[in-house]
Amino acid sequence: MNANKIPDIIIGRLPIYLRALQHMADNGVQTTSSQELGESVGISAAQIRKDISQFGEFGKQGTGYRISFLMEKLRDILKIDRIWDVALVGAGELGHALANYPGFVNRGFRISMVFDNDPARIGTQAGEFVVQDSRELVTTIRASGVKVAMLTVPAASAQEVANRLVEAGVKAILNYAPISLTTPGDVRVQHIDPATHLQRMTYYL
Amino acid sequence: MNANKIPDIIIGRLPIYLRALQHMADNGVQTTSSQELGESVGISAAQIRKDISQFGEFGKQGTGYRISFLMEKLRDILKIDRIWDVALVGAGELGHALANYPGFVNRGFRISMVFDNDPARIGTQAGEFVVQDSRELVTTIRASGVKVAMLTVPAASAQEVANRLVEAGVKAILNYAPISLTTPGDVRVQHIDPATHLQRMTYYL
Repeated sequence: MNANKIPDIIIGRLPIYLRALQHMADNGVQTTSSQELGESVGISAAQIRKDISQFGEFGKQGTGYRISFLMEKLRDILKIDRIWDVALVGAGELGHALANYPGFVNRGFRISMVFDNDPARIGTQAGEFVVQDSRELVTTIRASGVKVAMLTVPAASAQEVANRLVEAGVKAILNYAPISLTTPGDVRVQHIDPATHLQRMTYYL
Repeated sequence: MNANKIPDIIIGRLPIYLRALQHMADNGVQTTSSQELGESVGISAAQIRKDISQFGEFGKQGTGYRISFLMEKLRDILKIDRIWDVALVGAGELGHALANYPGFVNRGFRISMVFDNDPARIGTQAGEFVVQDSRELVTTIRASGVKVAMLTVPAASAQEVANRLVEAGVKAILNYAPISLTTPGDVRVQHIDPATHLQRMTYYL
């Protein structure tokens, strides 16, 4: 089937399923059901079966899903059966935290370069990286072929940096700045926005 | 209608709608349609109408939604028509970044206390706060009545700290540690997990 026709909302749920499956696998569980997976992620079993069946028949009626097999399929679909290099722009506190973040291992990503425009930061260490001058950003990213970037610069400069990432050939931007970015249609942006996560919990308080 | 019966997945979309509406309002827009709102958040117009109609009739056939009115309604529903105090646990790089984060203003939250267990950090400044000894966490949070916490401690200690937050009466935890937490049924947990955001973009590369 034409992958471009899968709704984005379904694609967005696959990493959530994958994380829950990984958690089960880490706890030594080998098989699961759409019911059980659904309970762990707060999505109905019917929805999960429907989402997964978009890509093929990965489970068996009555016996459910073999976790390692389903994880492998989800990784293939999401193209994280490989490792993506990521450019990090912004070597402030958040940038440093991400450069040292242990949560990317085995999940398809590794930071491969760090940029900042502050002379006091350029040349210093962020995690295992030397912070590079962001004036070199377009040239360096283009030469390396990196397609994924994380943006941890202040809101006031986020759009300008995003424009240069686009110019450099980046196609996926994870934006931590509390501002919406405008990018061409072939460049995806995701926001990390702690306020939205908090807001969906206060409803229940 | 009984608010408890609204599916969690709908509640989870309301903050996304609210953020998009805020973005429109910031740009001087006064009215919108489910079509236009849907395009800006990547959700179908029909789904948006259905989600919002769970709570009442907030738009008019043909004229759409008045943005300020819909925002006010969504804020009421999500209980962010007030300001929630938030306890931050973990004064490392990420904790400092959050203590200085400008993205909570006008969105219902303010950090009101910061804890860490590292003697080298206790008593130092994180944003406008003095870092408190996390041994005082249960007593201090309980006395203050704070119900919301953000967890920016290493994965290895996240569950233990979460247990103490629960003991202190916290009912909503935003967890930045790359590990799943187990909490009682009346305590909500949301994860900030950059890998899942990156994974939903690589699908398209």
